[in-house]
Amino acid sequence: MGFRQVISPGQALERLQGALGRTVAPEEVLLADALGRVAAVDVVARSHVPGFARSTVDGYAVRASDTFGAGPEQPAYLELAGEVTVGKPARVQLKAGAAAAVPTGGMVPPGADAVVMLEYTAQLDAADGGRLIEVVRAVAPGENLMAADEDLRAGQVVVNAGRRLFSPEIAVLAAAGVVTVSVSSRPRVAVLSTGDELVPPEAVPGPGQVRDVNSVALAAAVRRDGGRVVLRALLPDVEVRLREGVLHACEQADLVLLSGGSSVGPADLVPRVLDGLGPPGVLAHGLAIRPGRPTVVAACGSVPVIGLPGHPVSALVVYEVLVRPILRWLEGENYRARLAPVVPAKIAHQLAASGGIDEYVRVRLVEGEDGWWAEPVLGKSGAVGTLARADGLVRVPAERRGLERGDVVEVRLLRW
Amino acid sequence: MGFRQVISPGQALERLQGALGRTVAPEEVLLADALGRVAAVDVVARSHVPGFARSTVDGYAVRASDTFGAGPEQPAYLELAGEVTVGKPARVQLKAGAAAAVPTGGMVPPGADAVVMLEYTAQLDAADGGRLIEVVRAVAPGENLMAADEDLRAGQVVVNAGRRLFSPEIAVLAAAGVVTVSVSSRPRVAVLSTGDELVPPEAVPGPGQVRDVNSVALAAAVRRDGGRVVLRALLPDVEVRLREGVLHACEQADLVLLSGGSSVGPADLVPRVLDGLGPPGVLAHGLAIRPGRPTVVAACGSVPVIGLPGHPVSALVVYEVLVRPILRWLEGENYRARLAPVVPAKIAHQLAASGGIDEYVRVRLVEGEDGWWAEPVLGKSGAVGTLARADGLVRVPAERRGLERGDVVEVRLLRW
Repeated sequence: MGFRQVISPGQALERLQGALGRTVAPEEVLLADALGRVAAVDVVARSHVPGFARSTVDGYAVRASDTFGAGPEQPAYLELAGEVTVGKPARVQLKAGAAAAVPTGGMVPPGADAVVMLEYTAQLDAADGGRLIEVVRAVAPGENLMAADEDLRAGQVVVNAGRRLFSPEIAVLAAAGVVTVSVSSRPRVAVLSTGDELVPPEAVPGPGQVRDVNSVALAAAVRRDGGRVVLRALLPDVEVRLREGVLHACEQADLVLLSGGSSVGPADLVPRVLDGLGPPGVLAHGLAIRPGRPTVVAACGSVPVIGLPGHPVSALVVYEVLVRPILRWLEGENYRARLAPVVPAKIAHQLAASGGIDEYVRVRLVEGEDGWWAEPVLGKSGAVGTLARADGLVRVPAERRGLERGDVVEVRLLRW
Repeated sequence: MGFRQVISPGQALERLQGALGRTVAPEEVLLADALGRVAAVDVVARSHVPGFARSTVDGYAVRASDTFGAGPEQPAYLELAGEVTVGKPARVQLKAGAAAAVPTGGMVPPGADAVVMLEYTAQLDAADGGRLIEVVRAVAPGENLMAADEDLRAGQVVVNAGRRLFSPEIAVLAAAGVVTVSVSSRPRVAVLSTGDELVPPEAVPGPGQVRDVNSVALAAAVRRDGGRVVLRALLPDVEVRLREGVLHACEQADLVLLSGGSSVGPADLVPRVLDGLGPPGVLAHGLAIRPGRPTVVAACGSVPVIGLPGHPVSALVVYEVLVRPILRWLEGENYRARLAPVVPAKIAHQLAASGGIDEYVRVRLVEGEDGWWAEPVLGKSGAVGTLARADGLVRVPAERRGLERGDVVEVRLLRW
């Protein structure tokens, strides 16, 4: 033990990363099932996209050089050599002096290198009984078409390893002909609560008892972030049973969350139990944040075990600043590339600094004439009711002397 | 038909809301399965929380009046009447002149109305063989405890109808003793594509053919937003078959998305088919946005049918500005209460205005010394590869003359 010096959540993550290897394995899934998963390897395009020279307008495919110098006073006249149908191969091989009708999305025939828009053309009868296309505007090579490999090139990396797949990535992978994709397994998470005062959330608490809120709320947060909750349990505040319960969870999970018990009790039960899981045991005891200070960061073999505070509000703050980054790291997400949803706002009340630790204040966003104002939500730190009224969290950094009314802050949204 | 006047996405939604009723029914689910669902009715607390007067510190429960005037020079002396254990009913009925030991989270005994922190007390032997508590600081009534109904009151609305349930709501509902919750059914969505040039995304396109990207990408977006994709199909550009396909989808879904075909073809096939589904048929043809202008808003009975552009980039922009709000409306979400995840940034290049319509520009966010810069992602409008490089969308409003380098914009994130 002996880590009574509090550290930042970022330092706690680094300590875990230094002590442990990542544990989740890759697996192959169908693209249609890949939403929200993290690419385990760089994914490359299977073929060129669009795969053929594709017209971006309705018009005539031509050789650009045949139109050079053309204008309203000096039209160019080209022989109509055929017509392209959308979705079909172009059956024409375009020769010099010829043009082929091509619709938007149609294939530009071999031999052509540009498309003249319909509005700069007219069709005329030719002397030989065929049709002539009058062109009143010159086009440059490549104009009004997308080259066969212009959107994506076969073999090009279209999604980097570590990228989480949302609809834009799914679109690009579908276009690139990727049918299955190698993704990280969803991290298996055990969500444990401890505390003699706790009863399951479905039970009616007796006098002195309260419902175990954390196991339900943390399980929801884990699921929202792509984790798989493999175990939820309520453990008694008895050392041997707590140890058994955590060890059992470590066998089944890639990450163990244990809330409650870390700040109360005469004997610092949770830190002692977590240290007994080592090596490495406890890596950090105490985060430089409020609420959330009595957090314990430990590991059992290669499985991180986080002791969170028992108060639901504190537990969810620790989830936001520490557990979510751990989950993303386990899943291999390059989470630095992912942007946190924040709303800029002005703080509505003065807030005092906390002396050496970052304070996370729950705020409600209220729209003013000049943008958002963040109003601190009042209520005792243990009050779960304040959570429903809060839109987000504002960090009051340790290095500042607090915030003045009107200071601009970033509100980290709690719902997205 | 006759709606060739383009309208804003917001107006299009209002037209749908004016013409149709909401269609999804409520259903009862377990709280543990309620993540991401929308409350169908106001949800009330089943019991007070914490349910008993609960100490927020380690100390002694007292009658505050017994400590009035107490200080280091003039301690108050109280008789130790017992000890409270966390999770158990307090077995003491506190009388005047008495104190009971109580740990953090423990029940404050009946008769007591405040708690003195341990550090302002000492235990002494009493003359009668019992114990005396010396108190060197006065407490006010209510100090260092949370009253039985202070966090939540039985019968109080803790989550309003129309609220989507994220982990903070799940926490509050669990605390409030809510075991099952009435939520809106997940909207059933049919995702159709049309276009003779399309092949299924699993197929290898021949010359002139491209993969159907939209059905996969839109289905992913729908799922991410809580919808249930009940049908995915690729329909031919043949009027009778298109009509059959859309009618079939309308029977199974609460919302039909049909992408492709709306801007191409000699005969405006999609608008004609969608108008034939009426009344009401086509409600709007053309949105005042780019990309996405050739969007058709229609309804078949009470089922909204949206004709989206065929280009995947355009389709996803229309999804962001129109389809997601429709889904939230169908699900009964009070979506005005939900904050969009945006990042404030400065635009890195001058952007021209579009003459009367809002332009949505894909941007990449780059961190500068003074915050985020939004760099427009270049590429032809049909290029799906640009999606993977974009972090978000910036709206260039119709009413502005474009944006100058350094103008502050809100970047709507594409991934969250």
